[in-house]
Amino acid sequence: MKGLKGALVFAQSGGPTSVINASAAGVFIEGLNSENVTAVYGAAHGIRGILNEEFYDMSKEDMKELELLKNTPSSALGSVRYKLKDASVDDTDYKRILEVFKKYNVRYFFYNGGNDSMDTCNKISKYMAKSGYEINVIGVPKTIDNDLYGTDHCPGYASAAKYIATTVMEINLDAKVYDTPMVCVIEAMGRNAGWLTAAAALANYKGLGADLIYLPEVDFDVDKFVKDVEEVCKKNNNKCIAVVSEGIHDKDGTLICEALGKAGARDSFGHAQLGGVAATLANLIKEKTGFKTRGIELSLMQRCGAHCASGTDIEETFEAGREAVRAAVNGETDKMVCYERKAGDKYEIEYKLLPLELAANTEKTVPLEWITDNGTGVSEEYVKYALPLIQGECNMVKEDGLPRFARLKKVMVEKR
Amino acid sequence: MKGLKGALVFAQSGGPTSVINASAAGVFIEGLNSENVTAVYGAAHGIRGILNEEFYDMSKEDMKELELLKNTPSSALGSVRYKLKDASVDDTDYKRILEVFKKYNVRYFFYNGGNDSMDTCNKISKYMAKSGYEINVIGVPKTIDNDLYGTDHCPGYASAAKYIATTVMEINLDAKVYDTPMVCVIEAMGRNAGWLTAAAALANYKGLGADLIYLPEVDFDVDKFVKDVEEVCKKNNNKCIAVVSEGIHDKDGTLICEALGKAGARDSFGHAQLGGVAATLANLIKEKTGFKTRGIELSLMQRCGAHCASGTDIEETFEAGREAVRAAVNGETDKMVCYERKAGDKYEIEYKLLPLELAANTEKTVPLEWITDNGTGVSEEYVKYALPLIQGECNMVKEDGLPRFARLKKVMVEKR
Repeated sequence: MKGLKGALVFAQSGGPTSVINASAAGVFIEGLNSENVTAVYGAAHGIRGILNEEFYDMSKEDMKELELLKNTPSSALGSVRYKLKDASVDDTDYKRILEVFKKYNVRYFFYNGGNDSMDTCNKISKYMAKSGYEINVIGVPKTIDNDLYGTDHCPGYASAAKYIATTVMEINLDAKVYDTPMVCVIEAMGRNAGWLTAAAALANYKGLGADLIYLPEVDFDVDKFVKDVEEVCKKNNNKCIAVVSEGIHDKDGTLICEALGKAGARDSFGHAQLGGVAATLANLIKEKTGFKTRGIELSLMQRCGAHCASGTDIEETFEAGREAVRAAVNGETDKMVCYERKAGDKYEIEYKLLPLELAANTEKTVPLEWITDNGTGVSEEYVKYALPLIQGECNMVKEDGLPRFARLKKVMVEKR
Repeated sequence: MKGLKGALVFAQSGGPTSVINASAAGVFIEGLNSENVTAVYGAAHGIRGILNEEFYDMSKEDMKELELLKNTPSSALGSVRYKLKDASVDDTDYKRILEVFKKYNVRYFFYNGGNDSMDTCNKISKYMAKSGYEINVIGVPKTIDNDLYGTDHCPGYASAAKYIATTVMEINLDAKVYDTPMVCVIEAMGRNAGWLTAAAALANYKGLGADLIYLPEVDFDVDKFVKDVEEVCKKNNNKCIAVVSEGIHDKDGTLICEALGKAGARDSFGHAQLGGVAATLANLIKEKTGFKTRGIELSLMQRCGAHCASGTDIEETFEAGREAVRAAVNGETDKMVCYERKAGDKYEIEYKLLPLELAANTEKTVPLEWITDNGTGVSEEYVKYALPLIQGECNMVKEDGLPRFARLKKVMVEKR
């Protein structure tokens, strides 16, 4: 509905990214400048902050600090993993949210997250519409997993991809430094979608990548993996770098780390091999070949490495936040902001709106035709897709040689 | 000896750093400009390249690529771990080295490495002197471990410290993002010296550090660790970040990961806990508290993360290479280049020379008085020491949004 006047609530949900706060900055700055927005609130820890009436008054923050949010990783307002029940089953939470929205005259609600969060956002949107409460609800996407439906890519993905590609290049040089055998297995995040793991192909494009790349879109066969590594080693002076997704699984869908742990992959002491899949596979190769191996988990660093974020990602993610506010103020509701890539050689995107119900709970995985036939690599199509996204530097403000992250005052709004 | 004319050989040894090639660039560029130096060779894989007569002719390289070495991690010439026997026990290698040096008229020899490499350099230097062959031998220090005797700090340390401090700050924000318990154990390198682990204190100085820091200079007590974590969690909304050195050990000197693995720390499946010490301790805390935990190993990234290198480190490391050549040409031999910090508030260093035998095989650990009484932190003295070292950015050249590392032609010198 157009012309609404009232408070704005922005909340962050799910696993953070290194640029997630750029959207927060976009929403806050645009909201503070909008005549229709009477107050700009940030909810503490996502939906829980709404249920608990824990709002920060963003008008109390210095503009300089809001700008610094663009380079500050991890959800500045706090995140949450909280799944709303279907309103038809239990509408307690919905009633409470409506009550809170009414109490604070919230007329603009923005939820920032991935698949699950868009589901939450969709449910709230539908409930508010059904209950006749006038509010414009817009989803702001974020996820390093890049698995949201209906958008060319997801805010946050490019920065994680840039971190992974950069790190794989650096590890490539390091892992080859001795004239002795070395097999290095690197683990990227991504349970069902291999977008993050595929980013290693950007390092390949620069000549310093991985010999083998395994995505969870394809079943993983441990025996084939050992053979793949041995073949690379034969050709490659006993050196091999493999990048695997944490979500690789066998043909029955069992995660490889679990399959190996349970099936009894054992080291020379007879101990079961556990831990991350990189460590598990590195140990396996060590047992089979006797080579020195190293399992490396990119762990949280790939999603919080703001010092290596993509400038393009930061700007787009900031704009996604601003676009959400502009759209809502213009009367849009029940939508998610998404990116549409313009045709042509020059990379350019347009901000569009997608019905929330389409965005919710649909996972977009890497197209199978982008995975090479032997399942150990990613085609040039992927590089063509991803390379424009990682362009530009983060231009992080430093203080004492270290990141100067935003320092928010987080002034709590008095409970009503 | 002064006035020597002949070929220069530079070789790299031991674990690389993210700035090790800055010294290579310094030696090569200074050597190529010196009238006394008739040829500039890089030995492939350290001392082994000399034994095998595998030399790259550095005069064939583009100056632009030599400059790019300043930002290129991992030993560009290849490294080696090769321990020379005492010449009195077996002088086969020494005779061969002398033969090769004579054959190529090598009059300047530079060895780039840590403790073991300075030992190698020292042995070669002494043998050459004893055999009457005129050659000037200079050690060029490098080690992220910062454990070389006689120098204020070691080339390469500051960049690893900057990477660790930056990453701990980023992880600090990420690990606190949910309103649920989270214990994060981060593992830094350093078997006997805790300098790298101490770098987490730089993140503390910026307010986003670790609650607990454990150095290998102090015996580690697993039960105390659990209590320490529990106490932090109590005060801190069930959140705790601990940074540990890979080398932490119990009072008998047994490494903690081994001690726990062997003593039978078991997960809920009854599997023995193995792997890195971070994973081991994270699993232990999970068992004891039921909290979500995460073990993070900074692994190779801390020593190859050139994209996060210290500008000060790069420049000093480059100058250390140049200084080595200047000293050698001036007749110095049997020395290692070292840094001396000038007195006064403003950080400044002087390049000095230290007898090789003093540098070899002496480990410099973190002063015990810099470790807080409860053994879980590092004093401000450390921050005062380390902060100037991590100043300045790496100004890495990028191409396609990714690092543009040096691409050397590596033209082999024809064997004589």
